[in-house]
Amino acid sequence: MKTAAEYRDDLSNILCNKIIPFWLERAVDTTYGGYLTSFNETGELFGSLEKNIVTQSRMVWGFSNLIPFAREKDKTNMKKAASQGARFLIDCFWDTEFGGFYWLLNRDTTVKDPAKLTYGQSFAIYALSEYYLMSKDTQALEYAKKGFDCLQKYATDTLHGGYFENIERDWSLSPSGNYAGDRKSLDIHMHLLEAYTTLYAATGEHIHARKLREVYDLIIRYMVNKEKGYGYNQFDLDFNKLPAINIQRTWNAERESGEKIDNPTDTTSYGHNVELSWLADLALKTLNERSITDTDLMRKLLDHALEYGYDYEFGGVYRDGIADTKALIYDKEWWQNFEAMTGFLNGYILFGDKKYFKAFANTWEFITTYFLNHEQGESRQLLKRSGQPLISNLGNAWKGIYHTGRALAECIKRLNCCK
Amino acid sequence: MKTAAEYRDDLSNILCNKIIPFWLERAVDTTYGGYLTSFNETGELFGSLEKNIVTQSRMVWGFSNLIPFAREKDKTNMKKAASQGARFLIDCFWDTEFGGFYWLLNRDTTVKDPAKLTYGQSFAIYALSEYYLMSKDTQALEYAKKGFDCLQKYATDTLHGGYFENIERDWSLSPSGNYAGDRKSLDIHMHLLEAYTTLYAATGEHIHARKLREVYDLIIRYMVNKEKGYGYNQFDLDFNKLPAINIQRTWNAERESGEKIDNPTDTTSYGHNVELSWLADLALKTLNERSITDTDLMRKLLDHALEYGYDYEFGGVYRDGIADTKALIYDKEWWQNFEAMTGFLNGYILFGDKKYFKAFANTWEFITTYFLNHEQGESRQLLKRSGQPLISNLGNAWKGIYHTGRALAECIKRLNCCK
Repeated sequence: MKTAAEYRDDLSNILCNKIIPFWLERAVDTTYGGYLTSFNETGELFGSLEKNIVTQSRMVWGFSNLIPFAREKDKTNMKKAASQGARFLIDCFWDTEFGGFYWLLNRDTTVKDPAKLTYGQSFAIYALSEYYLMSKDTQALEYAKKGFDCLQKYATDTLHGGYFENIERDWSLSPSGNYAGDRKSLDIHMHLLEAYTTLYAATGEHIHARKLREVYDLIIRYMVNKEKGYGYNQFDLDFNKLPAINIQRTWNAERESGEKIDNPTDTTSYGHNVELSWLADLALKTLNERSITDTDLMRKLLDHALEYGYDYEFGGVYRDGIADTKALIYDKEWWQNFEAMTGFLNGYILFGDKKYFKAFANTWEFITTYFLNHEQGESRQLLKRSGQPLISNLGNAWKGIYHTGRALAECIKRLNCCK
Repeated sequence: MKTAAEYRDDLSNILCNKIIPFWLERAVDTTYGGYLTSFNETGELFGSLEKNIVTQSRMVWGFSNLIPFAREKDKTNMKKAASQGARFLIDCFWDTEFGGFYWLLNRDTTVKDPAKLTYGQSFAIYALSEYYLMSKDTQALEYAKKGFDCLQKYATDTLHGGYFENIERDWSLSPSGNYAGDRKSLDIHMHLLEAYTTLYAATGEHIHARKLREVYDLIIRYMVNKEKGYGYNQFDLDFNKLPAINIQRTWNAERESGEKIDNPTDTTSYGHNVELSWLADLALKTLNERSITDTDLMRKLLDHALEYGYDYEFGGVYRDGIADTKALIYDKEWWQNFEAMTGFLNGYILFGDKKYFKAFANTWEFITTYFLNHEQGESRQLLKRSGQPLISNLGNAWKGIYHTGRALAECIKRLNCCK
């Protein structure tokens, strides 16, 4: 195992010379604005090139946040890439009639699906807040705040608490069934937590702090098993747990039908659990409200993943598990492993236990050996447990710079704090 | 007992020739705008003449709503009285910096208490929506909608559901204790129900319908005993019942200290319960969503009041009761008896049982004999059980045209439907 400083240099090298250039050289859509993100294993465009608010926002976030980690010669272009993307969110995704950000555009900026998913609003808020922190562009922050205001007005469930997630253009709730207007999820509420953290960091407004705290408390109250340290996936509106189904537009929407879990099952996602551990820590640090009870849960989320979802032979975390017992699908997905890397390293900083550092290190070894396409400079999407590629695309409608770039940046910051 | 038509004529006469003229002749503050509402038993001004958002709004509501019941010669002046009051709400109560309506102004329009109570926002929404329905003044409706938007952004509790109630100028929550930033109540949520009903009637916007439905469902879920038919008063933020305390600015804020219940007790208000019965009916009719379960509760609210809180000797309802057993304070308060009149008569229309008509009739007999100051033309505030006046004022900082005028108008409409 290498030292923290050696890992830091490894990660910095990959982020600075591979990941950032991979996206900077090809993602900006110079014809229509926004970003192109579907690139195959040789780095060439493929597919329909539709523009999803989630991925477009994540690209804005990435180009805004990662500038300190870039080569000097790339920094100016990153600012430009972020700036045109932020403008694209405001000019093309914002619905001037009903408010809120659309879900999906065609490449040429015509609206393909005008739905107002909470997931989409979250990422737009996250991106525009981060872009503001980098650029001090107050108009971008105004739109982040407008997105927040729309969520409070149209998406809060004042009967049960929490937020409705699946919402149509005019803010009426989506139908039940696969459109899941009658469901809530840890996934979407966790990304609200993430978005409100950055929004509050950008504005300092106490209403943003209060709503951030409420989302955190809600997740803790209803969405995780606090004793055992794992998250449940889906719920009815009253937070009764439900077996997870695939949901139009969001949850597993990108997966092939043959790949889905046939019968809805009480699963947990190790990637989400470990991601929640570090996102919760960041949220509470931003609020300056972290307590022992909170850190205890952060530790349990890591320990549960290490006990049930970690691959001690090859490194990395499995894709899904039966909540309480064992992994169910042993494939490895890129985002789960990148997020796990950050979460484990964050645990090492918090608790000082070497097992978390080892988990980070072995996840990284698996990533650099199997996930990363070093020639092109990005991560593949999905692998078998032992590393054989199942989906070798380097980008797609859902995959951009966010998970890979953010994980490397967050780990580099933490590795700088390690002895 | 008289016939329905005879009662209708009695009530119409009082409303048209007494109540409306009483206020129309003296309430408009021609010096500073808005209304003066503190009048003693001879109809003369007394006291500090501060202007509370609740009472100012109720006056706007009254002059807007009651025009069809007024003498021809009064109608134009009522429109003017409503119009200047609506302008006063917008020009003097609206906080252009933080949004929302202030709590209390001095007579000369300087701000005395800039707090943003949910109670105050409710009544401003109620008043401006009703004023819009009368006048079609779209700016007034805009401000009603802005008030609604502020509540969704700043007052919703997305952890527990429902609304925070006690809030400071900048929308930070009030302290706990007597400022009750940590409490919720049936009172305030019932007045949200009332306000959203009229807002939705004015706008037809589905978000207003959705939030109205959520408030109704919340009240039913947490705030009433559905088996026995009575409301609880106060709750912690998580809707655990709490013995009622007096609350700065709202609950019993106007009462003399010697008059309060010394030890917080699990009380219920018969007036509120019966008021809830007809307000809930109106809300569900406006939503076009009334079910058998709903009407069953409306009946139970009436029957509980008739069993425990009704005075079969003198007529009318008592002021407070121990929730499950019997009346605790036998005094009679004007608003409870006026609201009870409407609620009982509404029950007669709904269920056809003569006992509700009798309860209405005997409440009215008590009101016309003891509460009404026929010489001046308004109701006294508080009486002993058998009718001796305890507080003979005809108006004060909390007492305007709303309870008396509305009850008469609502009863007249229902008496027109009786055989």
